[in-house]
Amino acid sequence: MKRINSDFMRPSQELIEEYAKHSAATVHEASGRKGAVFSNIKPTKPGMKVCGPALPVMLLGGDNIMAHKALYVARPGDVLVLNNGGVTEFGIWGEIMTVAAQSLGIGGLVTDGSVRDSDRMFNLGFPVFCAGVCIKGTSKEGLGFIGYPVNLRGVVIKPDIILGDDDGIVVVDIDEATSILEASKIRESKEAVVFEEIRNGNSTLEIYDLGKKLTELGLEE
Amino acid sequence: MKRINSDFMRPSQELIEEYAKHSAATVHEASGRKGAVFSNIKPTKPGMKVCGPALPVMLLGGDNIMAHKALYVARPGDVLVLNNGGVTEFGIWGEIMTVAAQSLGIGGLVTDGSVRDSDRMFNLGFPVFCAGVCIKGTSKEGLGFIGYPVNLRGVVIKPDIILGDDDGIVVVDIDEATSILEASKIRESKEAVVFEEIRNGNSTLEIYDLGKKLTELGLEE
Amino acid sequence: MKRINSDFMRPSQELIEEYAKHSAATVHEASGRKGAVFSNIKPTKPGMKVCGPALPVMLLGGDNIMAHKALYVARPGDVLVLNNGGVTEFGIWGEIMTVAAQSLGIGGLVTDGSVRDSDRMFNLGFPVFCAGVCIKGTSKEGLGFIGYPVNLRGVVIKPDIILGDDDGIVVVDIDEATSILEASKIRESKEAVVFEEIRNGNSTLEIYDLGKKLTELGLEE
Amino acid sequence: MKRINSDFMRPSQELIEEYAKHSAATVHEASGRKGAVFSNIKPTKPGMKVCGPALPVMLLGGDNIMAHKALYVARPGDVLVLNNGGVTEFGIWGEIMTVAAQSLGIGGLVTDGSVRDSDRMFNLGFPVFCAGVCIKGTSKEGLGFIGYPVNLRGVVIKPDIILGDDDGIVVVDIDEATSILEASKIRESKEAVVFEEIRNGNSTLEIYDLGKKLTELGLEE
Amino acid sequence: MKRINSDFMRPSQELIEEYAKHSAATVHEASGRKGAVFSNIKPTKPGMKVCGPALPVMLLGGDNIMAHKALYVARPGDVLVLNNGGVTEFGIWGEIMTVAAQSLGIGGLVTDGSVRDSDRMFNLGFPVFCAGVCIKGTSKEGLGFIGYPVNLRGVVIKPDIILGDDDGIVVVDIDEATSILEASKIRESKEAVVFEEIRNGNSTLEIYDLGKKLTELGLEE
Amino acid sequence: MKRINSDFMRPSQELIEEYAKHSAATVHEASGRKGAVFSNIKPTKPGMKVCGPALPVMLLGGDNIMAHKALYVARPGDVLVLNNGGVTEFGIWGEIMTVAAQSLGIGGLVTDGSVRDSDRMFNLGFPVFCAGVCIKGTSKEGLGFIGYPVNLRGVVIKPDIILGDDDGIVVVDIDEATSILEASKIRESKEAVVFEEIRNGNSTLEIYDLGKKLTELGLEE
Repeated sequence: MKRINSDFMRPSQELIEEYAKHSAATVHEASGRKGAVFSNIKPTKPGMKVCGPALPVMLLGGDNIMAHKALYVARPGDVLVLNNGGVTEFGIWGEIMTVAAQSLGIGGLVTDGSVRDSDRMFNLGFPVFCAGVCIKGTSKEGLGFIGYPVNLRGVVIKPDIILGDDDGIVVVDIDEATSILEASKIRESKEAVVFEEIRNGNSTLEIYDLGKKLTELGLEE
Repeated sequence: MKRINSDFMRPSQELIEEYAKHSAATVHEASGRKGAVFSNIKPTKPGMKVCGPALPVMLLGGDNIMAHKALYVARPGDVLVLNNGGVTEFGIWGEIMTVAAQSLGIGGLVTDGSVRDSDRMFNLGFPVFCAGVCIKGTSKEGLGFIGYPVNLRGVVIKPDIILGDDDGIVVVDIDEATSILEASKIRESKEAVVFEEIRNGNSTLEIYDLGKKLTELGLEE
Repeated sequence: MKRINSDFMRPSQELIEEYAKHSAATVHEASGRKGAVFSNIKPTKPGMKVCGPALPVMLLGGDNIMAHKALYVARPGDVLVLNNGGVTEFGIWGEIMTVAAQSLGIGGLVTDGSVRDSDRMFNLGFPVFCAGVCIKGTSKEGLGFIGYPVNLRGVVIKPDIILGDDDGIVVVDIDEATSILEASKIRESKEAVVFEEIRNGNSTLEIYDLGKKLTELGLEE
Repeated sequence: MKRINSDFMRPSQELIEEYAKHSAATVHEASGRKGAVFSNIKPTKPGMKVCGPALPVMLLGGDNIMAHKALYVARPGDVLVLNNGGVTEFGIWGEIMTVAAQSLGIGGLVTDGSVRDSDRMFNLGFPVFCAGVCIKGTSKEGLGFIGYPVNLRGVVIKPDIILGDDDGIVVVDIDEATSILEASKIRESKEAVVFEEIRNGNSTLEIYDLGKKLTELGLEE
Repeated sequence: MKRINSDFMRPSQELIEEYAKHSAATVHEASGRKGAVFSNIKPTKPGMKVCGPALPVMLLGGDNIMAHKALYVARPGDVLVLNNGGVTEFGIWGEIMTVAAQSLGIGGLVTDGSVRDSDRMFNLGFPVFCAGVCIKGTSKEGLGFIGYPVNLRGVVIKPDIILGDDDGIVVVDIDEATSILEASKIRESKEAVVFEEIRNGNSTLEIYDLGKKLTELGLEE
Repeated sequence: MKRINSDFMRPSQELIEEYAKHSAATVHEASGRKGAVFSNIKPTKPGMKVCGPALPVMLLGGDNIMAHKALYVARPGDVLVLNNGGVTEFGIWGEIMTVAAQSLGIGGLVTDGSVRDSDRMFNLGFPVFCAGVCIKGTSKEGLGFIGYPVNLRGVVIKPDIILGDDDGIVVVDIDEATSILEASKIRESKEAVVFEEIRNGNSTLEIYDLGKKLTELGLEE
């Protein structure tokens, strides 16, 4: 049974850099409200950002041997996405893996499990998005899958673009990456106009035509 | 069906300023241990404070059209209290609403739902107390209620005084506001004495007569 | 019924100081993966550390009279471990108890319940590890036990050594304290070598022989 | 402050009887996927059904004095909807209130809190839908609201039609009740046809045109 | 370190039999609203009852070797109370232990952990109250404590009387057992009168004087 | 991108029938304590059993179009394993799909999501194991994967054997199926002996040599 798939097209470095300029919330909206991962996955400390090609890894809950393997399957810039099945009572990633990842140019870590050595990792400047911080050690006994789709609390992650900030994680389908980027830019431009209009004294009820909508819904004042 | 009630008495600015000097925990104790909202509602970052008249808003879960309306029903200094039914997988408030709220002089946001753009909002200096941070967008299709009571995890909030700090949120019934303020001041004075006594070497068992209580309860030493 | 047991051997100050040099994760690994408390107990703010002899206290949920008593049973350096049965909707410890604890030289607080006055306590520099922050006040009516074993979400804590950092809390059985310390030192030394090897370009698959293990497990590449 | 609103139009008995013939899931679909209450509210034992005009009651969490009052505000056939703010560690309804409710012809109970005497209530044949079963007693000290809207985990309940079965609870806006009933009947008729088609060997991919949809989405076989 | 305490006074068989006639909710009320264990501990199937002297056992989470030992420390009629620290992802009790317990005359099992073989145990007629049902096996490596107090989610259980039914578990302090039994009987008598009054057309507002209370609280009708 | 893999070896009907004779707990133990799915997946009503080849399906959370497709990819006897990412606020399976599944000879349903029409499905006699029951409807817009591995809360499910009863779900790796079956039989035989020994008055401390183990661990009596 084939368990490693490393031979997929990465998005261009240029595209990644363009995405990195946008917030996760903007990209989520621009993609038609898709790709937002469940809100329990957050940076270990505020202020972190991550953006890159996703390398999905399916782990047996609490076993990180395939995460070690994934370090050496990944290409520089890849973001490891460790699907631990939502099990959070193990620290499946820590300082040693972070140092290894950094030496390999890996772009960051996203997991629905927990990590440990959170303090030291933060000082190393490596972006880590996770569902918890837990001391408990893992086994190294179980084969999983690298480079195949995983399901992070309802969001299927293939080798797509993954983007994270303080608000959480959003995933962009590689096939729609160009159009969603365009839509993200348009959205940010529009938001700049909205901010200007608000400063000029317009209400959001006018700007978004919500006043009319409320009347249609039957709101009596 | 009437859905907006904006015509209620606000507490005086003076009273709000007096309350702002006290911690949420002190006011909770001074009110006879009432009004403390469930502990999952916290500031998006430590150090925020909020104090003002509460404007309760009942939203359909995940729909924020009435929150937009509430911006323009609120009076300067009001704190919006968005009751999203405890549903946290939507970002029902973000940067645009924050900019609008600040331009209107609104005092802060409290919600049992989630927000997004947490980083940008923090930089804007607007106090936001919420149950989570979530990227996912909302609908704008459902009528709720503004200025009528809501139930935030067991605490009924009418147009009362609302106060929040790192410990969480407490609500003060407007009819009891003066007496609870008085009790808060007395409590703080007493605490100052207690700190002095502790520094002088007295035990909390003596200060609060707990030693005697323990003996009554039958503690053998 | 005897409810207070204060007459147990504390580990030496020297041993405590040695332990304080290690991370909770290292000690957990060095002890054969024992003693890691459930991951919901964390410092109130990142960066805190605690290390000392554990003084376990069994409270009735939401009643802190025995915690007051424990302040005066504790010896300088002791870390209070308040077992509130995992009930988090009470603030069972706050500023006054912190000031008292500091005046007595107590080393810190660990609880499976919640605390309040989190902001002020942080400024006082007292290490507090807890499962939540909650405004609600406690009763002072119920006898518990001091110095007897408690169960913090599956980890039994006797008068042992307790150690905490950003990753959480770990407990070391007093009878194994010397050997686990030794193992911790060895582990840290080995990790230093591992970091060096990684910087020299070796993979963790080589260093830990995981490549071989993967082959044994049947991984085809 | 007015706290009791009993003077609203109930739907006709005929309409209620028609609704009682449909499942909660059918009505939810027929209403355009609205009104389904969070899935943690279920009958205390399988097999219960409830259908009637909703009488919403906002309680202070853990205080049921307004539930007693609501018994005597309700009209025969009304279903009490007790909004306890989602607090489940109190038994806010039990055998005595059930006996009183039955003597008054009340149609059932729905709550986001817990109940007790679950066994005895079941034997009395009174339909109870709740979020838990809990022994703990309540206070009788706090004023709430009767007949005003409440928010049950994201679903706003006015004096509407409420319907429940083993799948959970759904609410129908009184203003749309006739059209949703019509849509429910149509849906059930269509489902009868679907069952017939399936028995005749047609696939759901054909019946719902999902095969075509999958091709449009780009599924390769 | 002494780990087993079996030498405590059991309540008389007569007292246990008297308690078995009352519901857990009644005893909770009669004891001044004490002793109700967190509501997540329930019978594996509706209809079970348990009543007897509690034998508290503190387990390491997921390790049941001390539960085996406790079988042979218990006396006939004792109810084993296994404190697993609230950890539910292990089946710490199953068919074999049930058969052993029945052969020894043990009265039942209460735990804040999970069990397995739930179906077979039910057929054996042994009362099991637990927080979950889980397949996963346990270790047999860790010493705990038998006959010493444990904390089940905020309720301290010594060698007291424990009583359970569909509503959950309540614990009675042995020192107050006689007076609480008396109060339970009085409460049941009063309830019989209340049921009669309700059937005679009296309201609970009259019977409990709640109408007057509501007026005092300021309810306007 | 290939999304459907139906071309894998099923275990023989004979093997399935042999497995169906064992309980999930026995098979879990016999496999060296592997394969037990998280304990929140249970039958909709007690007494259900499921056993067959697993057909794993990865859904986008709340979208069941691929579940419809999977009905027609499955072979008679297959058990559909719908991985909804642990999202439980949708009813992703109901009566229509059940009728279709039964007409196709499908063996049962296992999901980490929720279902609806629970009552009707039970009457149809189709085994359904799920994490909840929820009324809310699904979308039919998102491509997932059929016949590729999924991760159900930490347990990776390939086209393996899946087995469920009241205790929950266990998965057996197809490559180890014969040896685990053998071990299951041996275990059941041994258990029969154990039951006999217990009835003959032997203690589990003797039978499993736990008394010796306890002495080694240092238990003093």
